[in-house]
Amino acid sequence: MSIRLAILGYGNLGRGVELAVRQNPDMELVAVFTRRAPEALKLQTEGVPVYSVDEILAHKKDFDVLMICGGSATDLPEMTKKYAADFCVIDSFDTHANIPTHFANVDAAAKAGGNLALISCGWDPGMFSIARLYANCILPDGNDYTFWGKGVSQGHSDAIRRVEGVANGKQYTVPVPAALEAVRNGENPELTTRQKHTRVCYVVPKEGADLAKIENDIKTMPNYFSDYDTTVNFISQEEFDRDHKGMPHGGFVFRTGKTGANGENKHIIEYRLQLDSNPDFTASVLLAYARAIVRMHKEGMTGCKTVFDIAPSYLSPLSAEELRAHLL
Amino acid sequence: MSIRLAILGYGNLGRGVELAVRQNPDMELVAVFTRRAPEALKLQTEGVPVYSVDEILAHKKDFDVLMICGGSATDLPEMTKKYAADFCVIDSFDTHANIPTHFANVDAAAKAGGNLALISCGWDPGMFSIARLYANCILPDGNDYTFWGKGVSQGHSDAIRRVEGVANGKQYTVPVPAALEAVRNGENPELTTRQKHTRVCYVVPKEGADLAKIENDIKTMPNYFSDYDTTVNFISQEEFDRDHKGMPHGGFVFRTGKTGANGENKHIIEYRLQLDSNPDFTASVLLAYARAIVRMHKEGMTGCKTVFDIAPSYLSPLSAEELRAHLL
Repeated sequence: MSIRLAILGYGNLGRGVELAVRQNPDMELVAVFTRRAPEALKLQTEGVPVYSVDEILAHKKDFDVLMICGGSATDLPEMTKKYAADFCVIDSFDTHANIPTHFANVDAAAKAGGNLALISCGWDPGMFSIARLYANCILPDGNDYTFWGKGVSQGHSDAIRRVEGVANGKQYTVPVPAALEAVRNGENPELTTRQKHTRVCYVVPKEGADLAKIENDIKTMPNYFSDYDTTVNFISQEEFDRDHKGMPHGGFVFRTGKTGANGENKHIIEYRLQLDSNPDFTASVLLAYARAIVRMHKEGMTGCKTVFDIAPSYLSPLSAEELRAHLL
Repeated sequence: MSIRLAILGYGNLGRGVELAVRQNPDMELVAVFTRRAPEALKLQTEGVPVYSVDEILAHKKDFDVLMICGGSATDLPEMTKKYAADFCVIDSFDTHANIPTHFANVDAAAKAGGNLALISCGWDPGMFSIARLYANCILPDGNDYTFWGKGVSQGHSDAIRRVEGVANGKQYTVPVPAALEAVRNGENPELTTRQKHTRVCYVVPKEGADLAKIENDIKTMPNYFSDYDTTVNFISQEEFDRDHKGMPHGGFVFRTGKTGANGENKHIIEYRLQLDSNPDFTASVLLAYARAIVRMHKEGMTGCKTVFDIAPSYLSPLSAEELRAHLL
């Protein structure tokens, strides 16, 4: 029997989940819920109904897991704990510092409702977290390095667009090649913020704007840019539309460690992602974990989980026998 | 309370396990069992007793998990199923084709004895398998690539040493850089055996041996070398001892996939290991999983598991709260 999914929130992530369902023959999208007027949404899939989120309880029996595709700043802290009371839910909450609080809230709601919830799923937090955890357990005597990019930072792009005189803008986070190489060579460098990443901005200025002032305002912006080597490129809206519409991202998780009687043997574990579409990839991770959550709930588990708590075999449509024979 | 380990088999892997215990403060090595005369073994650790494996049942209460450090060809198929009847056990069985049979044998013995067993732990099978499984579940529409090396292949080194006129020899498996780059660039190449890896041999000839014949015998050896571009370097025993004593290994697991309405977004997942010592790293993986097996057995689980069945959090000495706060 298919795993029946519903999506709450139809932005980039929700659309990615919708498309990822097509690649998973054991899954079926049964509904999209929205806070907007349902008739305003045009799905990419024929025959899937769109409902107002206000009607969601009426559809309690229609799906196995609710994919909550909202933002981490304000949506998810409220939505996931609310809907975990009535549904098995998955979110991609990525405000690292607030994960313990979010977990406690969702865990209480899910347990009270007899549901199973998964928070902070995606690639960071998510696959990067798993890479860090495995590598730390294997090499207890070692160092961690995480690099992000080359990829678009939404937060930094938003910050650029708030600068006076800016019509449009996008910011790419780029790992410094020399830093990457030093880590990959096992040199265990100590790296400052500036030595790890550069920030490259593409800005469409408003007509008549003071370009020098825009550049200075960006480069000196505290928290976002002042601690980095930042490049500002001015381009036309046409160039922006042609070259900067995508949402690529990715990065590297390294663990470098040593073993032997005197630490004489060095080991480097590297996990790398190169993603053309950050929301598509995040959606694909969510789908694999949706399979796990539905199975684990059928086994009687309730409460809140993270990716750390889920055995890899739960993610696969293959049986344990098939996995042992073909993937081990 | 410490996790109490015993080692069965004191070769390279057993010695690696012994040293890895020092990096895990929650673990304690309580005994080494051997098929040799116990007095012949000189451990690297003060105060750990060495016993004949014939006495192992007398020590049933002394340890929580038995690390079976034997060879996959003949030792492990017999030993792991035998000892799983009496102990929680872990092995690194790596004959991929025979994993289903080995699993069934060990599972039956472990269940009958009320014990928990883990087979095929290490890096391939092991961490590479986990990388393949996660990546396949996330990107169902994609291609897999595994490269090994640069590293020493024991099997190929043994094959060299059986060639007439060879006093000593070592073989390195080396990924072809152009193939690696094509995969990493998302070109999804179709690669023949020859296009993926080269084989580089260092041979110490016996005095007066026919070097041309040795080189030809190696390069034309079926299964081992004839399908590869093979290089044979003749060196002295002094050079061999200076430059080729180590057992480095490693490799790359790639999954390349696509998402989007028309497969327009490409994604590349890469997991890479660079290991100065294959046995040390394998031992370090075994140790992390020893923690998991002891915990899961305390929760009441029995039978045989693989790395696919074990949630990442079981590997860590940190609590679930600490993991969520610091590694997620």
